[in-house]
Amino acid sequence: MFDPVSFDNLLRPKSVAIIGASRTRGFYWVRSFLEYGFPGEIFPVNPKEKEVLGLKCYPSILDVPQEVDFAIIAVPAPIVPKVLEDCAKKGVKLATIFSSGFSETGTKEGVLLEKMVAEVAKKVGVRVFGPNCMGVYFPKQGLSFRPDLPKESGSVGFISQSGGNAIGIIICGSVWGLKFSKVFSYGNAADLDSPDLLEYLRWDEETKVIGIYIEGVKNGSKLLSVLKKTTKEKPVVVWKGGVTELGSRAVASHTGALAGSAKIWESALKQANVVSVHSLEEMIDVLCGFSFLPPPKGKDLGIVSISGGSSVVCTDVAARFGFNVPELPRKVQEKIRSVIQPVGVNVKNPIDLASSFFNFDAVEFALREVMDCVDVLIFDFQVHYLTLRESFGERGIVEKMIKIVVDIGCEYLATGKPFLIVLPLTFCENAWLKSKRSFQKAKIPVFTSITRAANTLSKIYNFYQRKRLRE
Amino acid sequence: MFDPVSFDNLLRPKSVAIIGASRTRGFYWVRSFLEYGFPGEIFPVNPKEKEVLGLKCYPSILDVPQEVDFAIIAVPAPIVPKVLEDCAKKGVKLATIFSSGFSETGTKEGVLLEKMVAEVAKKVGVRVFGPNCMGVYFPKQGLSFRPDLPKESGSVGFISQSGGNAIGIIICGSVWGLKFSKVFSYGNAADLDSPDLLEYLRWDEETKVIGIYIEGVKNGSKLLSVLKKTTKEKPVVVWKGGVTELGSRAVASHTGALAGSAKIWESALKQANVVSVHSLEEMIDVLCGFSFLPPPKGKDLGIVSISGGSSVVCTDVAARFGFNVPELPRKVQEKIRSVIQPVGVNVKNPIDLASSFFNFDAVEFALREVMDCVDVLIFDFQVHYLTLRESFGERGIVEKMIKIVVDIGCEYLATGKPFLIVLPLTFCENAWLKSKRSFQKAKIPVFTSITRAANTLSKIYNFYQRKRLRE
Repeated sequence: MFDPVSFDNLLRPKSVAIIGASRTRGFYWVRSFLEYGFPGEIFPVNPKEKEVLGLKCYPSILDVPQEVDFAIIAVPAPIVPKVLEDCAKKGVKLATIFSSGFSETGTKEGVLLEKMVAEVAKKVGVRVFGPNCMGVYFPKQGLSFRPDLPKESGSVGFISQSGGNAIGIIICGSVWGLKFSKVFSYGNAADLDSPDLLEYLRWDEETKVIGIYIEGVKNGSKLLSVLKKTTKEKPVVVWKGGVTELGSRAVASHTGALAGSAKIWESALKQANVVSVHSLEEMIDVLCGFSFLPPPKGKDLGIVSISGGSSVVCTDVAARFGFNVPELPRKVQEKIRSVIQPVGVNVKNPIDLASSFFNFDAVEFALREVMDCVDVLIFDFQVHYLTLRESFGERGIVEKMIKIVVDIGCEYLATGKPFLIVLPLTFCENAWLKSKRSFQKAKIPVFTSITRAANTLSKIYNFYQRKRLRE
Repeated sequence: MFDPVSFDNLLRPKSVAIIGASRTRGFYWVRSFLEYGFPGEIFPVNPKEKEVLGLKCYPSILDVPQEVDFAIIAVPAPIVPKVLEDCAKKGVKLATIFSSGFSETGTKEGVLLEKMVAEVAKKVGVRVFGPNCMGVYFPKQGLSFRPDLPKESGSVGFISQSGGNAIGIIICGSVWGLKFSKVFSYGNAADLDSPDLLEYLRWDEETKVIGIYIEGVKNGSKLLSVLKKTTKEKPVVVWKGGVTELGSRAVASHTGALAGSAKIWESALKQANVVSVHSLEEMIDVLCGFSFLPPPKGKDLGIVSISGGSSVVCTDVAARFGFNVPELPRKVQEKIRSVIQPVGVNVKNPIDLASSFFNFDAVEFALREVMDCVDVLIFDFQVHYLTLRESFGERGIVEKMIKIVVDIGCEYLATGKPFLIVLPLTFCENAWLKSKRSFQKAKIPVFTSITRAANTLSKIYNFYQRKRLRE
């Protein structure tokens, strides 16, 4: 039986041992704990070293003079079962087996070794991540599997069968403002598997949104039942690796998992009101949507742009994702028209401001007027029109415009209406970065394209709709 | 009748007049010509100014003492027909009508004014871009519609009904290495329309690949017939705005065009072997594919990655786009295995190098070994693993790795095999930019995700396949 409360205790160790042979990789682990200011004792274990990064190094975990709660095991596969037994003798309660060379090799020896690991873990009562994984990233507790990951904590929980994708979600997600409560990489799942970790994140109050990258699962019906329970409380986004025949062959070589039929997965996930995604970008987008946007109350979209072409395109894409772009009431149209230039603009919705984009009072007025007429507002922020004018001496207009959009964006979000920015990457890379960071700081999500924004909106809308229907 | 040879002459004016009332916008045009080093005379025309940016300003175009070949008309809509007549009197042969306030307003007056423009143009024999457009970007000739666009010339020709999307393709495309021969923005198409401009780009030797953003066309069968002719010689990529009902309403307010049924468009474009895309990003990706990659000879894909999870995902996505990821011949697998670490890697294809990623000789060896076994190679470049190691003192490894990948990438491309990089945007933004620029300098295309890469490969593969079948 998996108990989230006692598991949560395991995630707050007072000391950690890094049992690793490799000078490079083993040291990374030590460095991670040092960098993160892990609040307990750190014990490197390696018979070939006296000292690692200023810390005394012990030949075996049994030589460590104090208690050890948590162990990272990074030794060659054949000696992992023995090391795990030593860990248990030392009182270790949680271990991450980083080593690979188990069932993912497809060899008899590998499969057998993994079975031994599972048996030892069960026998001695040590909970195990892996083998073939990165374990735990829990920044609040000073736990990380890489020294350079963000130290700030957030409300996204993530479970990944792949270590690479666990790193990927953190380092790519942080570009878009995602911050994490806990990220677990569990690899071949000899002991801890996705249902356990999901059960934990469901229980965990720090976690508001959950993402999962999964390649295969040993107990599918158990996972499904935890998913069903969880989506009644929190959004869960699942990205399944190995959905194609070729992909499932790659899965076998990666985590030794059986990928299962794509159709069965797809229908099971739908049944559980899980949001399915098919790439890292899509996972990041949807987690951002759930993290930063209130549930859309309807499908009426407002679109504000500086370019007629772009507003046409935004409308097309929005419509393709099932949104409506309603013509604004005539009164509102007239009000907006009264403050902007008379020609070359469209005030019906999509609103094409054309060169009135540079009349900041008008932009502010228009954005506020639209608020009552739509369920969601998308602002197409084409910052390069502003940098061009800055280059001719109109100083500070990028910042001025950002401030207006941030202020109004926050007003929308405060009244419970989703507001988001489409910010295409152009050659003004610095202005792009600056704008992106400013919006993210204000917790307004940024998407590089209307397609990504509309896809995200549609997925979060559908999730909340189905959730309501199931209540 | 449209004759590309004489049109080409019009695009090489010896003098230009900028007839504009607005102090801001009219000056931008003047600035563009100055910035671009337009090789002829520049005559600002404005009765309210004596001098513009150091150039003498004339009250009317008729007051200009020398000949004028090309005119930019940026005056209020009602006086455009009169100004156009003056232009003709002065001997102007080509004009860009930037002014808006014509058929796109949906008013009787607007429609009538546009009809007058078309009639005057026909009567006096001036070829006209617009109204409601940006006209010509032709960097080799010193013609641009914005002062800050790239000055370097390339081989992509682009036709855009929308001025915003004409700017968009240049400023967003340049981030991904696209360079342009000519970009035309033609707005409401009172005179010059997409079939003419396409006919010109077909004829133009500087142009190797053609992209089109189109909202509607007056003579659909003419466009179709030019498209059919053109795709026998050059790839043509079309992005249709206003494909949804909502989008077509936005089109009417934008360029006054009739958007037409999406289904009819889709089937006509397919008939003509045109590559259809549905967003700016996709347009950029596919133009990059055609610009930088040789035609794939088959659908066997090689994938090289540092991460098992990422290689699973790459395989899934490739399979979804109809590619094969063939297991490498046993001999090749053994050869690769002999130079890399024994565990935690997959040498079957996808190749998951795991920590052998840092053994540069092994990476080089593996990439070269795979060359004969596949039709296309995708290298999943996760630069953040390298920056992490650099931060621990292994200096210069990002550059070293880039060099190896560039060298081998060029070898692939030289033997006629597509080679491309997947480079996800991570928090190591500087390393990302540096890698991106290095690959682009070597003419190796870069995509931010496997989905975008595989979609592009599939579109260019299908284009060449159909082209062969029609030959």
